[in-house]
Amino acid sequence: MTQLSNARAGVITPEMRTVAGKEQVDVALLMEQIANGRVVIPANGRHDRLIPCGIGEGLFVKVNANIGTSSDRAILEDELEKLRVSIGAGADAVMDLSTGGDIDACRRAILEEATVPIGTVPVYQAVIETVEETGALIHLTVDKIFKVIERQAEDGVDFITVHCGLTRSALEMLRKQGRVTDIVSRGGAFLTTWMLHHDRENPLYENYDRLLSIAKKYDITLSLGDGLRPGCIADATDRAQIHELMTLGHLTQLAWDEDVQVMIEGPGHVPLDQIEANVILQKKLCHHAPFYVLGPLVTDIAAGYDHVACAIGGALAGAAGADFLCYVTPSEHLCLPDVSDVREGVVVTRIAAHAADIARGHKLALARDRQMSLARKNLDWETQIKLAIDPEKAKRYREQNPPAENDVCTMCGKYCAIKQVQEYFRE
Amino acid sequence: MTQLSNARAGVITPEMRTVAGKEQVDVALLMEQIANGRVVIPANGRHDRLIPCGIGEGLFVKVNANIGTSSDRAILEDELEKLRVSIGAGADAVMDLSTGGDIDACRRAILEEATVPIGTVPVYQAVIETVEETGALIHLTVDKIFKVIERQAEDGVDFITVHCGLTRSALEMLRKQGRVTDIVSRGGAFLTTWMLHHDRENPLYENYDRLLSIAKKYDITLSLGDGLRPGCIADATDRAQIHELMTLGHLTQLAWDEDVQVMIEGPGHVPLDQIEANVILQKKLCHHAPFYVLGPLVTDIAAGYDHVACAIGGALAGAAGADFLCYVTPSEHLCLPDVSDVREGVVVTRIAAHAADIARGHKLALARDRQMSLARKNLDWETQIKLAIDPEKAKRYREQNPPAENDVCTMCGKYCAIKQVQEYFRE
Repeated sequence: MTQLSNARAGVITPEMRTVAGKEQVDVALLMEQIANGRVVIPANGRHDRLIPCGIGEGLFVKVNANIGTSSDRAILEDELEKLRVSIGAGADAVMDLSTGGDIDACRRAILEEATVPIGTVPVYQAVIETVEETGALIHLTVDKIFKVIERQAEDGVDFITVHCGLTRSALEMLRKQGRVTDIVSRGGAFLTTWMLHHDRENPLYENYDRLLSIAKKYDITLSLGDGLRPGCIADATDRAQIHELMTLGHLTQLAWDEDVQVMIEGPGHVPLDQIEANVILQKKLCHHAPFYVLGPLVTDIAAGYDHVACAIGGALAGAAGADFLCYVTPSEHLCLPDVSDVREGVVVTRIAAHAADIARGHKLALARDRQMSLARKNLDWETQIKLAIDPEKAKRYREQNPPAENDVCTMCGKYCAIKQVQEYFRE
Repeated sequence: MTQLSNARAGVITPEMRTVAGKEQVDVALLMEQIANGRVVIPANGRHDRLIPCGIGEGLFVKVNANIGTSSDRAILEDELEKLRVSIGAGADAVMDLSTGGDIDACRRAILEEATVPIGTVPVYQAVIETVEETGALIHLTVDKIFKVIERQAEDGVDFITVHCGLTRSALEMLRKQGRVTDIVSRGGAFLTTWMLHHDRENPLYENYDRLLSIAKKYDITLSLGDGLRPGCIADATDRAQIHELMTLGHLTQLAWDEDVQVMIEGPGHVPLDQIEANVILQKKLCHHAPFYVLGPLVTDIAAGYDHVACAIGGALAGAAGADFLCYVTPSEHLCLPDVSDVREGVVVTRIAAHAADIARGHKLALARDRQMSLARKNLDWETQIKLAIDPEKAKRYREQNPPAENDVCTMCGKYCAIKQVQEYFRE
């Protein structure tokens, strides 16, 4: 039984109760949202320490942090530290995108420790093992892909990115129209290479029923990936991207037919003025399945600050209806993030998610800002720091530059506007 | 003669030529935009080293950095370093908001060195001198205010913030409706205190003609301040704020009647979903005078990261038509920024301004992103770093974590999607 099949049968699961409690929403309404596919709870029964998390319409906007080794950097302890820091900074989910070292061991260690849902991109491991075993990606087999998916499912992975919508006709469209950066999705690039070499259809598309049967068995949530997401502003919202999105809409319905939970992945690099349209399109074409966006980055030139370009796009996407924001760190486009990059990425993306919640009129989000502002008016520094998105950093700033008068700050010193108004205006 | 009177007379000034050259726009069109008040060039004839900068419709979105001493921290050399760092990081203008130490000396040193337009808030100095001379703000006189404005004008200040729209009727409206954070503008708080104590109208409103005659004489651009800007999400877009904005619309016309250039200042703290409406309102109510926004911050809880909350709001405001973004640093709401906070604030706000330019379809902005993306596709790291918003930080990231294969990065290592696609897809 999956969360979806339970919801459709009118059964409230313990996972639904946990999520309803955390979100302060009615559990029967939540069940209904799950039944109609607008909310997912990625929760593999084998992920022991998981505290379930809901993603979708009517809930807080969620944040994902990507961690994982690469062929250049593969130290398990570093990745576990990134996991801890991500959760500590407020990440709602973490993806293990390891491509270096002992991938199984890394994933298993992460799953053993993680209290948040864990996602993966199984095609990475399938390709890497193929390269290690045969010397070339093109020897990847359909069986290999599904064996890796099954292995990861057995380990307790809660959601997987599968680029099922990257079809031959989408690639043909991409070829015809041309692009500045072609394909920037790693999974998309692997599959494209294989498809072109063998002149065959995407194995994840062709064998989608096999994928659904594994997903159903373990209640893995499918995160239908965007292998053709735009990798730069110039490529955004093009025919190839929208073609893939339409295919994902069809695959969403097929998954729902099998009681499999689905999210849809989205771009990428998108100019600010096209973000709302992208969200509306996804919601409509994919029947309101939750939308999981990577960014979007609103410019290509913010190397070193792509977390900020991502926060701008993510906040706007969230306000327009996106449900799940994948973070980007300051090291994006430059190198593998270290622990401090991960922390910065999570905090900044949480700000975007919260700004989106505010824009969506979420009562609990608005209440927190109101409390913060009352503390600000009352010059109550302890409460301000407690309510800050990152109390540690706020405290550090305040303490490193202490004011002469304790109730104000060094920005205005004794000419504090708030104090002034308190003394004269409110008498 | 002001830029506005020249433009109205059909005279193309050297300042207009410089701006048209930098912006790659037609100088006759620029002159027309200045004549109809949609563009300003804040350029006091006494500011010797100034390289003129245009602000308004059809031009790049501009960024301002606030610097200046406070009663708690007043070291001239620190502020000069902040000036240099601001300009180096790409600030288009700088405001000297000094309220501590020798305010005249600080401003003069800044003006002597600055190649960008310099702005001030003269009422700060008028109040501080009054407090020093008489012991209390309430002894502030109308003459004192105008003597300080004239002194700053003679020094070469290019634009001044004057909270002329904070009238008694606006305050009455604020009292009636109530607010979470009342007044958070420092200048607004000073004036309110004085007005309530003396039961008198705002001296900058009542003596607006005197202000206009000084502004006209030196061609100081008036930045009509928002003393009643919302200081928190809950107070945004309320009656008090909009009342003040409507008054500023009237004062804009009066300034234009005297050939005085005008910008309008805007909020503040505004939920993401209200930002576009704020820009549309300002443009309509103030007859398309340039809009200069402080933020807007899209949440109240981002202490330590308010530069990011500001970048989100600023990008959206810019995309909607705001022309000039005042930065916020990571230290906002906590302490006076140091040099590194200033740098971070400028870079992040420049990202917001650039994202807005992209959204507005600015051809030169789009071209830069395209070039960056081509360099990315070609794995041309040198060009990527050169085109990054902050080449220094991008270079540092790349060098601190060097890949085994020189053409990729440590994020994907040998499994680089771009390289993969180059090798297989583009053969």
